[in-house]
Amino acid sequence: MQELKDRILKEGKVLPGGIIKVDGFLNHRVDTALLDRIAAEFGRHFDMNEATVVLTAEASGIALASIVARHYNKPMIFAKKAKSDNIEGGLYQSEIFSYTYKKKVTLLVSQEWLHPTDKVLVVDDFMANGEAMRGLCDIVTQSGATLLGIGCAVEKGFQGGGDRLRAAGINLCSLAVIDSTDPIVFR
Amino acid sequence: MQELKDRILKEGKVLPGGIIKVDGFLNHRVDTALLDRIAAEFGRHFDMNEATVVLTAEASGIALASIVARHYNKPMIFAKKAKSDNIEGGLYQSEIFSYTYKKKVTLLVSQEWLHPTDKVLVVDDFMANGEAMRGLCDIVTQSGATLLGIGCAVEKGFQGGGDRLRAAGINLCSLAVIDSTDPIVFR
Repeated sequence: MQELKDRILKEGKVLPGGIIKVDGFLNHRVDTALLDRIAAEFGRHFDMNEATVVLTAEASGIALASIVARHYNKPMIFAKKAKSDNIEGGLYQSEIFSYTYKKKVTLLVSQEWLHPTDKVLVVDDFMANGEAMRGLCDIVTQSGATLLGIGCAVEKGFQGGGDRLRAAGINLCSLAVIDSTDPIVFR
Repeated sequence: MQELKDRILKEGKVLPGGIIKVDGFLNHRVDTALLDRIAAEFGRHFDMNEATVVLTAEASGIALASIVARHYNKPMIFAKKAKSDNIEGGLYQSEIFSYTYKKKVTLLVSQEWLHPTDKVLVVDDFMANGEAMRGLCDIVTQSGATLLGIGCAVEKGFQGGGDRLRAAGINLCSLAVIDSTDPIVFR
């Protein structure tokens, strides 16, 4: 998606360790109009009439997933990352490693809200090692629902998470795949 | 907002400790069409032409804040709850107590994205003790921006957080204020 690539080149910063900072429009201050155009772009890759639900993981994925779900008038489910008093009963769980926070976290989705009849579009703003995506796909499998695919805004191609998902046969659509950071080069 | 109250009565569950579970439409599985109607309702209470930004705190507030911001074509900022590698430099910080997770957390907003010229609508899906709201208002004050008000979907009136904010002169609009839970009675 050219607009997204242009914004990354214009406003993104590369920090030590290959971290790409796009927090002015994607994951801290969020340009909601851009996210709505990203939602429209996903509609060119996935049959959104078929989708019954959009699934993401807290926290930053919630912004994009909400706007994608709203765009197509679908419900959105976000996997929680810690057990709170507000979740009870049966849970789908998947343990992932968060490179952002340097620790294992467990993704949790209540069994009440994801069913074998669901057709799920997984959405996230960012993918590096693909751990969150892997965990979300695992939860879809546990629920018996159908995974339509994964819509991702920015993929750090050089960290391999996206390619592992593609090799597993998953329909992954990343709108900007960054293959190197010095300077930023898109696939 | 009658539709929201009806949903709480029909689908909400009261758990021990006065916890009101509305995770089928508000904060786990999210009914994005309802959230868009909540956004429209906020527009009857606040001058959304005047607002320059919608501010919330991760995680569940992001869904409603994104859809409110999208509805009025504004950017949305979400305060982070832990320092990640992806935030650097100057931060507005406010320490709050999270009753959901039973621990102190620090809300963080990069100084890069909130300015004295901003007019801020704070949005959250849920308010109990009002700690998150207090922290967000504190961050608005630190930034020198103007607080237009607070838009909240569900307020647990019996926990007093909302009334403390009203007593402090803040323009707080809660669309469903629950004053007791056995049975659920709205203010």
